[in-house]
Formats: sequence, C-alpha cells, structure tokens
Amino acid sequence: MVTRLSHFFLRTLREDPADAEVTSHRLLVRAGYIRRAAPGIFTWLPLGLKVKARIEAVVREEMGNAGAYEVHFPALLPREPYEASGRWTSYGDGIFRLQDRRGADYLLAPTHEEMFTLLVRDLYSSYKDLPLSIYQIQDKYRDEARPRAGLLRGREFTMKDAYSFDYTDDGQDASYQAQRDAYERIFQRLGLEYVIVAADNGLMGGARSEEFLHPTPVGEDTFVRSAGGYAANVEAFTTVAPDAIPFDGLPTPVIFDSPDTPTIETLVAHSNAVLEGDYSAADTLKNVVLALTHPDGTRELVVVGIPGDREVDDKRVEVAFAPAAVEAATPEDFQRQPLLVKGYIGPWSEQGAILGEESATGIRFFLDPRVVDGTSWITGANIDQKHVHSLVAGRDFASDGFVEVANVRAGDPAPDGSGPVELARGMEIGHVFALGRFFAETLGLKVLDENGKLVTVTMGSYGIGITRILAIIAELNNDDKGLIWPASVAPFDVHVVATGRDAAAFDLAEKLSADLETAGFDVLLDDRPKVSPGVKFGDAELVGVPQIIIVGRGAADGQVELWDRRTGDREVVAATDAVAHLSAR
Amino acid sequence: MVTRLSHFFLRTLREDPADAEVTSHRLLVRAGYIRRAAPGIFTWLPLGLKVKARIEAVVREEMGNAGAYEVHFPALLPREPYEASGRWTSYGDGIFRLQDRRGADYLLAPTHEEMFTLLVRDLYSSYKDLPLSIYQIQDKYRDEARPRAGLLRGREFTMKDAYSFDYTDDGQDASYQAQRDAYERIFQRLGLEYVIVAADNGLMGGARSEEFLHPTPVGEDTFVRSAGGYAANVEAFTTVAPDAIPFDGLPTPVIFDSPDTPTIETLVAHSNAVLEGDYSAADTLKNVVLALTHPDGTRELVVVGIPGDREVDDKRVEVAFAPAAVEAATPEDFQRQPLLVKGYIGPWSEQGAILGEESATGIRFFLDPRVVDGTSWITGANIDQKHVHSLVAGRDFASDGFVEVANVRAGDPAPDGSGPVELARGMEIGHVFALGRFFAETLGLKVLDENGKLVTVTMGSYGIGITRILAIIAELNNDDKGLIWPASVAPFDVHVVATGRDAAAFDLAEKLSADLETAGFDVLLDDRPKVSPGVKFGDAELVGVPQIIIVGRGAADGQVELWDRRTGDREVVAATDAVAHLSAR
Repeated sequence: MVTRLSHFFLRTLREDPADAEVTSHRLLVRAGYIRRAAPGIFTWLPLGLKVKARIEAVVREEMGNAGAYEVHFPALLPREPYEASGRWTSYGDGIFRLQDRRGADYLLAPTHEEMFTLLVRDLYSSYKDLPLSIYQIQDKYRDEARPRAGLLRGREFTMKDAYSFDYTDDGQDASYQAQRDAYERIFQRLGLEYVIVAADNGLMGGARSEEFLHPTPVGEDTFVRSAGGYAANVEAFTTVAPDAIPFDGLPTPVIFDSPDTPTIETLVAHSNAVLEGDYSAADTLKNVVLALTHPDGTRELVVVGIPGDREVDDKRVEVAFAPAAVEAATPEDFQRQPLLVKGYIGPWSEQGAILGEESATGIRFFLDPRVVDGTSWITGANIDQKHVHSLVAGRDFASDGFVEVANVRAGDPAPDGSGPVELARGMEIGHVFALGRFFAETLGLKVLDENGKLVTVTMGSYGIGITRILAIIAELNNDDKGLIWPASVAPFDVHVVATGRDAAAFDLAEKLSADLETAGFDVLLDDRPKVSPGVKFGDAELVGVPQIIIVGRGAADGQVELWDRRTGDREVVAATDAVAHLSAR
Repeated sequence: MVTRLSHFFLRTLREDPADAEVTSHRLLVRAGYIRRAAPGIFTWLPLGLKVKARIEAVVREEMGNAGAYEVHFPALLPREPYEASGRWTSYGDGIFRLQDRRGADYLLAPTHEEMFTLLVRDLYSSYKDLPLSIYQIQDKYRDEARPRAGLLRGREFTMKDAYSFDYTDDGQDASYQAQRDAYERIFQRLGLEYVIVAADNGLMGGARSEEFLHPTPVGEDTFVRSAGGYAANVEAFTTVAPDAIPFDGLPTPVIFDSPDTPTIETLVAHSNAVLEGDYSAADTLKNVVLALTHPDGTRELVVVGIPGDREVDDKRVEVAFAPAAVEAATPEDFQRQPLLVKGYIGPWSEQGAILGEESATGIRFFLDPRVVDGTSWITGANIDQKHVHSLVAGRDFASDGFVEVANVRAGDPAPDGSGPVELARGMEIGHVFALGRFFAETLGLKVLDENGKLVTVTMGSYGIGITRILAIIAELNNDDKGLIWPASVAPFDVHVVATGRDAAAFDLAEKLSADLETAGFDVLLDDRPKVSPGVKFGDAELVGVPQIIIVGRGAADGQVELWDRRTGDREVVAATDAVAHLSAR
C-alpha cells in the first residue's frame, strides 16, 4: 500500500532540538523519526519505527542463520536472580529499582545473563541438549548519570542480546565463532564498516572478548591497530616488556638535591643541568598515588610507577583495578601518609623500601611492564626537594606486580609482533564475550556429561544495541540537507514527489507509485496539495529516502526526474521507464 | 529454513505448573510456549513468541487497512503528564511507580492516552492535519492485586492501543467506525467469535463505548442480549421504566406491626399473613445503605431503593457511583445514623421524609428506575419492628434521582424495544471507546478550524490485549492431549514427525520438509534420534500444530500419514502427494 504524505503521521521541524548534542539526534528529531519523552527516553514515530524494524529484520535473519532461537524476557524482573549474581548491588545507581504493591523488590533489567542462565537451568539437564544459542530483541533500561547524544546513550534502549550454552570449551569456541561470523554478516548488510578489536574480558573469568568498532574520527572509543592485523581497544592492549638487563656493573643509586622539581618536566631539566647527562622523561620513574574503593567499601591507597613520558590512562586503570573504583589520591590521603612526599615519591630510600613488598608504608606498589629488572631510573627519594638517580629495578626496589595502566602511544609494538600500532577512534557497534562459567557456577547451571558426571556449563554473551546502531547509521549517513539512508535500512525504497498545480502530475505520481509498489518497492508519495515544491524537496532531503522521483512539469510529456539522494545526480526519464531504472540500481 | 526439534529450544513438561488456574496457562507452560518469571510476568519461549508475532501481524495489517500508522512509546514515563490528567493519583496501587537517580518520579505506563495526546499537540496545529489515527503494539504494566489466570490477567502484558484524533464529532464517528470495522476483521481472521456489546462510557465524557466479547460459558464478564440484536455488558444496560401511575384513588399509607421481619422473605410472608394479600418480593421496596468514598477521601452514606426481588449488582453500582469507591455500610455507619433502623429502613415516616430531598437525615436517596410515580410499596417505617404499606412513590416520598444499580435478569426488556434479554457470559477481547474531549481539554490539544478558531480535539481510544487474545485462543482451542491452534496463528504450519529406526524414514522426512518449505509452509521437523514414537506423538499433540505428517513405517514404500490435529483424522498418502494435499486444505 502506497503511503501518502497527505495522511501520513509526519511533521518535519525547521529548528534543531535544543538538547541535541550530536548530528544523529538533531536529524532524527527534525526529520520526524523520534521525539524525546524524557531524558534519554524516546518515542518512535512511524519513520523511525520502520527503520528500526528493518535493522531488527536483518539481525533476526542472521541470528537464525547462526542457529540461534528467539525468546523474549520481561523487562520487569524480580530482585532474587540479580541478588544471587551480586549485580543487584554492583550496578549501584546504574539501574532502575522499584517495589510492587506488596513491597517486593524489582528492577528494570539492564541485561539478562541471570535470566537466560536460570531459564536453561530450569529446562535443560543433559549434554545432549547442548549446544544452545538463544537471543532476544528487547528494551533495556539503564539509569545513566548523564543520558546524552540522543539514541547513542539512552536510558531506555533496544538491544539484541544472545547467549550461548556449551558444556565444553571447544563447544563454546564454536558458538562464539558462529555469533562472531553472524555479526560480520550483519554489519556488512547494514553497510557499517567495522574493526574487530580485542576487548578486556572483565571480571567474570571469560576467555575471550572482542568488540566490533566502527572506525570514525568522531568515535567515543579509542583503539589501537597494527599494519600486521592486530587490533584491540586500549583497555585490552598489553605492553611488550623489554628483556631484563643484568645488574653487573650498573652504578649504585645516588641521592641528589633537586629543589622545586615536583614535575617530570622540571626534574628532567634539572637532572640534565646538575648531572650533565642527556636525560629525557623516559628516564624518569613517575609514581602516581591512586585511591581504590573496593566493593566492600574499604579505601586503599596504591602507587603505580610508570615511565615519566607516559600518563595513567583512565580506562586502562579502571580495568586494571576492577572491581575497585579508582580515583586520584586527595590532599587528605597525603596527610594521612606522611611518608609519601608529594612530588618526590619513590620506591626507595637510604633506609630501605618505601613502597612495595615489605615496605615501611604497607602501601602496595605496582609497576608498568616496561620497568623490568636492571632498568635504571631517576625518581623521587622520599625526601622533600631530593631525587635519586641510578636506581635499578629488581636490585634497589621491588614491587607487588605489574599493571597495565600507562597510556598506549602510536608506535608502541603490538603484542603479537605484528609491528608498531597506531591509535584510531571508533564507535562500539557490537560485543562478543566468552563469559565462561561465572553465571552458570553462581546460579547452578550444570548438565550431565557423556559419563554421567555433572559439569558446569560455559556461556557466551553477544550484544548489539539496535537503537544505537540506528543512531550510528544516521550519524554516518547525512549531509547538510538531512539524512541519507543506506537502501538496506531506509524507511521507504522510493520517495515520489508530486509538484505543481497540474492534476496530470498528481495523477502520474499516483500511477507511478502504484507501479513501483507492484514491482516490490515500498513507496512514500508526497501528494500534499498546496505545498510548494521547495518545501517538498526540502522534506525529501531531510527524510533521506535514497531514491527520489520528482513528478512535475515534465508530467504532461510523460517524463519524471530520478534524483539520487546520496550523489545528488538527477536524470530525466520516461515515466514508463522509471520502474526499470530503479530496479536496475 | 526448516526448524529441527533436535536443535530447537523446546522442552515440553509432563506436569502441570502448580500455579496454573486456567487451561491456557497450564497448556502454554506445559507445551513450552511461556515460562513464569515472577507473579503475572512471563518469559516468551520460541513457540510462544511465534504465535504472538502472528497475532501481531494480523493486527498490524488491519490497523494499516484502517489508515492507522504505527508508533512506539516508551514504557518508562515521567510523572508529569499523568499528574496533569489526574491518573498519577487515581490509579492508586494499580501502577508501578519508581524514581530515577535524581529522584524524579516515573511510572511504568498502564496505558498511553496522555502521551498520545501530548505527541499530537506538539506536532499538529491545524484541522488540515486531521483526522489522524495512530497506534502502537507495546508492553504495558499494571500492578494487579492478584495476578492470576496466566496471561489472561498479567502484570506485564502486550497491548495494541490505537488513538484517533478529530476536530468534529462526525469525524470522530467515522474514525471510531473505522477501528470498529478493523476489529471485526481482526477477530474474524483470528477465528474468534465475538459479540459487540454496549459498554459503560465511563467518566471521561465519552459519547460511545463498546466491548468485543467472545461468548463462552467460562467467560469472566456477564452481558445481556436480546433476540432482536441488542447487546450490552451489565454495567451499560439501562432499565426500561414503566409509565407513571396517576395518584387518584390510591390508598394512603398504613403503618403495621411486623415483628422479626428484617429480610424481604420474612416481610413478604408476614405481609401476606396480616394484610391478607398476595404480595411478592416485587411489591416491596428494599433500601440498601451504601458507603461511598469520594476521590477527595470523604465518606458519604447513601441509600438506594430497589424492588425487593432485585439485588444490588456490584459492577453496576461501581459504575453508577464512580469515581467514588462503594462498599456496604458498616455497623459503625449505622451507629452514627440512629435514624436508620436496620431491617426497617424506609424513605418515609409519619413525621415526614427520612431519606431523599429535604430529609431529616441529609442522606441522599436514589431509586431504581422502576420506582416511578404512583407505584405503591411495602417498605420499612423507620421504626423497629414496623413496616408501612400503600406507600406511593412521588406522593409519599421523593428521591435524589434514579440509579442503575439493580441486577439485570433474563426477561428484562431491552432498552431499544428489541424484546426480552437473556444473560450470557463472555471474555473481553477488545474495546473501542469514543473518549471525547477529556484528555485534549486537560492537556491542551487544540487546533485551528476552517474559520481560524481554536477548537478542542475529540479523541477515541481502541485497545486489544495481544497476549490476552493469545491466551483466549489457547483457552478455546485445546483437548485433553494439548493445544490445537487455528491455522492463522499456529507457530508452524506443519509438524513433520520422523519415527522409527529406519534411516529411510528420516531421509524422507527431511526431503518432505524441504519440499513443504519450498511450497511456502513453515515446518517443524521432529528429527530427534532415539526418541520413541509415543513421546513424539505426545509432543506433537501437546504443541498443537494443526497439521501433522507422520513419516514412519510406510516410508520405505514412499508413504506418509497426514494427521489433522483438530479432527483426529488420519490419512495415508504418497509422500509425493503430501504437499498437494496440504496446499488444498
């Protein structure tokens, strides 16, 4: 059935919405795809719902091809399963909680690992039932601190989340690979370029985790990649440590006066002056004091020593110390630890170890992987206005282990030996995650194996944010006139615009639209009377259906104009040939 | 793609779920369509989701045919619009409320009139934009006091709710009719017999309201209908009042002793004895004391006078006094009103009016419409152990108006003159409601009319409970072996069962399934190895796909058995003819 703009529920807006921070939000609201209902919560108008349905159809088809079956869990869920997994508490303020009329606790589910695990536990009991992959396309809820960027980070959003269940690690690998392959097909069909990057595998003991990122300079995530094929997000990048250096013949540490040198920059300048060397920031060891808040609420100070030419990376430090929350130490923290002399902190003093194993302070001390045994450093002497040089790792000071907290830089070697990495930015469009046995263990999902022995099931979790994908597609496909949808997800295949006052043009537009529908095209017909051609063309450009046909002055001669929204190319053809032209594209 | 039971996510259960009160709930759980997640909250398994999707597809198609466009509102909504309409409060305990991390109030929407009204207000401004009909298929939430009967009354459920917007009453009539016609087509396609009954039009000033009921003796709703075509639910039935009787020559009231006659039964027996008449309960006026609790919290006692052969109907009294809540008067209420002598209450005493206008008590008094002027009654004398006879309405006592609170009985005349009514039971499957201008007035939805004058829009609201419909279809289509789906909503078109140990049977079943898929059938293939024919047949009967094909012993001879799940008929045909046989059905 041809959709006629004279009746269709659509009103385009001239003005950008006041709260729109990103292009996709601005254009989707202006072109009549979505409306804001509350912060981070949107109403889907007919155009938006059609695009969303087309993306969902692609995802459903490829989930089916991957052998996954669709289910649908409630959004409103009881507290108990989330209590059992610990997430009722660990989500903190990030979820919506409520009570029913009897005072029972519920939440609006932010993700469904617990429920999927319990469902399979309730129904399946034997290795013969596995492997199993099931998924849903469902609305999820997160109480974001600052919902922003329209659909890119909402509080109510649609996700496809799939889960796989296996009783062997090999089986889990195969299930993971099937989803990973499906994701590649999905993003190819949606016209979304992607990079698969290694991701942090989190706290749940998972073996493998990868993100699908769309590379774009405006992406919110940074990732690294080498020409040789390595790719990882910055959290998952692992540093290539140099070989240890023998201690033989290395000079012994010397404390030297270094007034007013609390920063690496001032320390390097001073060192080159008084030591007559050619030192750079990379020769100094920067000791950064962090305050961890553990899940049980206790606060712990730790120090990380990294080469002075590096910074602590917020995302890497978060992953390195999870599940603790990390922040910079406060002035009060320093007051409580007088042995930490701000600006002059080091692992060593002439009296012995200050930080790390068997230290005077009891403060745990972690090192960047580059600080291998035998490397020699200029660093703080734990005395105000004094530093020490020739301090050798492994000989003069020890640590409580290595942590990956220093920032990654272009030129750093990829851990797989595939050469130096470059930094790039991207938007997350999917995530595949070998969860391992955390949820199955916690919630008691076991099956009998071939030998009649109970074994714990291993799971995978695989997510695509449907509404986020839609926003990203909009973010990547537009110009200053409006949206330009890829044909695979456009709300309509063809937008027929009848212009002028000539009834013949409207009659021809009607006939052409009917022919297009018969040929299998989904047609939007702008048959609004008394609306100027300029307004109609502007609306067509804003709405962004990829193929536009103008039926106007040439109608009397049986001619129409094909207008490619993306290239801007226009071509006059006989109306009788229009269907064939479009079918050939 | 053929769906194979060897991999499909399905586990049928031998036992009925402990909490299942109704057949649909019992069978949908046992056959693997749904699982309980919390009281009144269900998870949809693949089979259930497929049936639900098919029902939704029928509804979508007919909404499209009715010229309605699909939108989708959030489930999580801010308080403000519901505060403006008064429903934030009036829903009482019936909705789920929550707060976000900033303390802002939200609710899980039980229905969306407010949001639809605001959306149209924000986008439309002219009569030229109307009429408009928009709808959504969306999950809704109600915190039922006692969620029960599985999907028939859940706390999370899926509804199709449509809303129409017009600026004239004629336009509203046409929009209403278009939805009503669509409902008829939907229920016909779903194989659901229906009766359209007049319904109470509620508090919102609506002009017209009708329910679609499926007539069934196990229905939870009572409705009345006449052979002449009248149909209404009991709340909407209006009594035909007899003509008034001239007062001339009517005897004057006489008080008489009536010891120990606090009930109608004892009163009638006593009256016939002492008055030497032939009275029945219909000759007595029963005065029932009710306690109303108004929305502002105030409590008011009222009395209703109805013929002694009728009872106060709970549903009718609720509608009659809405928005007040109604309950029977308590002993404390009687203590506070000593003029009300329990068992002997009447509108009149020798001192004057006891109830009604200008009464001594100030208590409002309402009459059944049958108590017209000139009718003569035996009723209480407001003196313990005394009644009065020959008390004439309109002459000896007055009232504050008529109310429809007495029960409806088979044989009562239909208000449209179409003859006596009978009582029947049904299940509500749809509701069409001319809302009028309540929401538009409250939320400021006005448009400019042809004369440039601002006019308030008139709305309609039209609902179908998708998950409820699914349960009703299951409730009506089953036998002692399991479900029997109508073809229009079955999860699969054909269930092919391969039995025996003969590889030839499995090969033939595979080939036949592929042929059926090619011919356009959606096929479920039971290819489970090492499962006995008995278990496979039992599962096929429980799951309820309407057409079953058994591929077993006859496979070697190229023969299969067609099994009609509803009739039980079995027929052996050549496998090569099976597709043609099914296509012909």
